[in-house]
Amino acid sequence: MRKPKCVAIVSGGMDSVTMAYFLAADHDLTLLSVDYGQRHVRELDCAAKAAAALAVPHHVVDLTSVGRLLTGSSLTDRSVPVPEGHYEDETMRATVVPNRNALLLDLATALAVAQGAQMVATAVHAGDHAIYPDCRPAFIGAYQMMALCANEGFIDPAFTVVAPFLYRSKAHIVVEGDRYRVPFADTWSCYQGGDKHCGRCGTCTERRGAFVDAFVPDPTAYEE
Amino acid sequence: MRKPKCVAIVSGGMDSVTMAYFLAADHDLTLLSVDYGQRHVRELDCAAKAAAALAVPHHVVDLTSVGRLLTGSSLTDRSVPVPEGHYEDETMRATVVPNRNALLLDLATALAVAQGAQMVATAVHAGDHAIYPDCRPAFIGAYQMMALCANEGFIDPAFTVVAPFLYRSKAHIVVEGDRYRVPFADTWSCYQGGDKHCGRCGTCTERRGAFVDAFVPDPTAYEE
Repeated sequence: MRKPKCVAIVSGGMDSVTMAYFLAADHDLTLLSVDYGQRHVRELDCAAKAAAALAVPHHVVDLTSVGRLLTGSSLTDRSVPVPEGHYEDETMRATVVPNRNALLLDLATALAVAQGAQMVATAVHAGDHAIYPDCRPAFIGAYQMMALCANEGFIDPAFTVVAPFLYRSKAHIVVEGDRYRVPFADTWSCYQGGDKHCGRCGTCTERRGAFVDAFVPDPTAYEE
Repeated sequence: MRKPKCVAIVSGGMDSVTMAYFLAADHDLTLLSVDYGQRHVRELDCAAKAAAALAVPHHVVDLTSVGRLLTGSSLTDRSVPVPEGHYEDETMRATVVPNRNALLLDLATALAVAQGAQMVATAVHAGDHAIYPDCRPAFIGAYQMMALCANEGFIDPAFTVVAPFLYRSKAHIVVEGDRYRVPFADTWSCYQGGDKHCGRCGTCTERRGAFVDAFVPDPTAYEE
């Protein structure tokens, strides 16, 4: 049987790279990354490494002109400092990029329609729900209905948004990645633009905690 | 009373420029254009002229790297010829850019959230429905629900997708534009990349017919 075609949004972080390894076995995968002017462009190199390791096509879309427009988020506006500490804190709202997942999914859907793929995949997980409205199950459902409506007659009628970690914790992702032998050292989480993971920002704090909770050794080199 | 903030998607065609003139009086407008690698980049100059005439901000987002990915549409893939004749023809399906309006609305919504605007505006009209699934009322409704869900807590709860011509014909747009003194000669429709409107392609055929149906003189210089 032919494998179903799937366009996976892969940033190069540990969630999306793990998803790519997870889907690679039984899908005809294409990886899609976006450069939206984030400080942590290093993650794009990690997405390329994952595509090379899995021997699948990888496209990088340049949305830097969009990033410049969207001031107010610390991920794209260098005048807003990156907050430290746990994601639960109100200050982490500063890491919200307006409408990000809708944009990413719409790029993936456009490519899926152009290629005749019947799936797009996103690595949103349950730990994201509290902060990011576009990581909730309700959003994934609303998006899928909208995309089917937007492309009726051109999109595969069985079009599906695949979100394998939608109800899973980040620790669960580490356990899955360990099972699929994901080279975690070749994934990037830190929102600062340094050479090593800073170890202090929200995603670093979350990354460290996930390895601890999963009882899996953390291969990441942290600054502290 | 303060005017509501509105981000209007303006390509530089006669529909979207007319919409900008129509909304300018009672909205705090920002115009948003997208360069997605279309042959008819000349329309972007027309969008800039409209912004200058209305004295409102104008942003152009560069999506050319997305356009390159989406082969198969004659608007972005120079190996696919632009079809001629009426839009009803099956061949006009070649002018569909996958998922275009969802992508455009996503950019407008992202900017609306960043700016605290409560509206985004699109100039889709009833004549588009037969060919483009993402110009139908059902899509506009599905998009609005998705966008509210995607940005809950960050977006204005009264967020609305404004589509003033959703149930109107292109001839009606000409009548409205005439009322608002839109300089139609400074709007661009032709899908070919020439110096003048070709007069033969789908949009030129439609443009010509709209002026005839509206009993408004057509100021466009056509090649034939």
